[in-house]
Amino acid sequence: MTDTEKLHYEDFTPGRRFDFLPKTISAEEIIEFASEFDPQPMHLSEEAGRDSILGGLSASGWHTSSIFMRMMIDTYVLRSASEGAPGIDLMQWRKPVLAGDTLAGHSTVEASRLMRSRPHLGIVTFQHELTNQRGQLVLSARNSIMMRLRQTVGISA
Amino acid sequence: MTDTEKLHYEDFTPGRRFDFLPKTISAEEIIEFASEFDPQPMHLSEEAGRDSILGGLSASGWHTSSIFMRMMIDTYVLRSASEGAPGIDLMQWRKPVLAGDTLAGHSTVEASRLMRSRPHLGIVTFQHELTNQRGQLVLSARNSIMMRLRQTVGISA
Repeated sequence: MTDTEKLHYEDFTPGRRFDFLPKTISAEEIIEFASEFDPQPMHLSEEAGRDSILGGLSASGWHTSSIFMRMMIDTYVLRSASEGAPGIDLMQWRKPVLAGDTLAGHSTVEASRLMRSRPHLGIVTFQHELTNQRGQLVLSARNSIMMRLRQTVGISA
Repeated sequence: MTDTEKLHYEDFTPGRRFDFLPKTISAEEIIEFASEFDPQPMHLSEEAGRDSILGGLSASGWHTSSIFMRMMIDTYVLRSASEGAPGIDLMQWRKPVLAGDTLAGHSTVEASRLMRSRPHLGIVTFQHELTNQRGQLVLSARNSIMMRLRQTVGISA
């Protein structure tokens, strides 16, 4: 993909929505991620998960967040002129993500603005949601990604 | 560790600080995590990192966040009566985390409150910071963790 074929700042108009391909989360992935980054009992075994308020072997919130990142990557980030994100405004893990759950979701452009400090970049703010196969909202988030402009413009304001 | 030896809600008094052990991040780990969850060029090669605004091969923000989770785990979460976290209030990736950087940091208890809906749990809110070996703040975050009470009490308010 050439740079001009990529999605640039100008293409992320408020209201535009990007739908993720569904992904099923296995017990093995949950345990592998948790063993490295979040080895709490409810993320390591079905039995400990059932004994916790999560009700079963459940993905670390950081794992769900990382899977969500990969969904963004595959849907629009890699075919965009992204320069990365300065952080997350809000990340809510609203329901447990259990082994075997299938997640789907989308990102919607909420707003965009030019960066004064870097005239070739703009900031695109997204609202994100993931739901499970039972229709429950499991993750909601809001963050901003820096995108290169297709055409650098002067900022008069 | 028996349950009574663990840190409970009552032990997380505002101002209490937990210092993390330092951790050095290798190029290999950066590339491995990014290959699975965030395969953007600046997280996959030194050359693409130098061509980006990050200035070198840099960890995905989600990777830095997951490493930070592991630091919390090793410092206090696993020896606490944690029931997990409902999300992240704020996560800021303030400077790039470059291959070879050594991160250190701490969590400080900001506030705590009982949960009305679950009388055996309280919510502890933390402020977190990670700095690199050059003394630069690379991550700041704020989130809340649900902790079991040592003694369940009636809520009069």
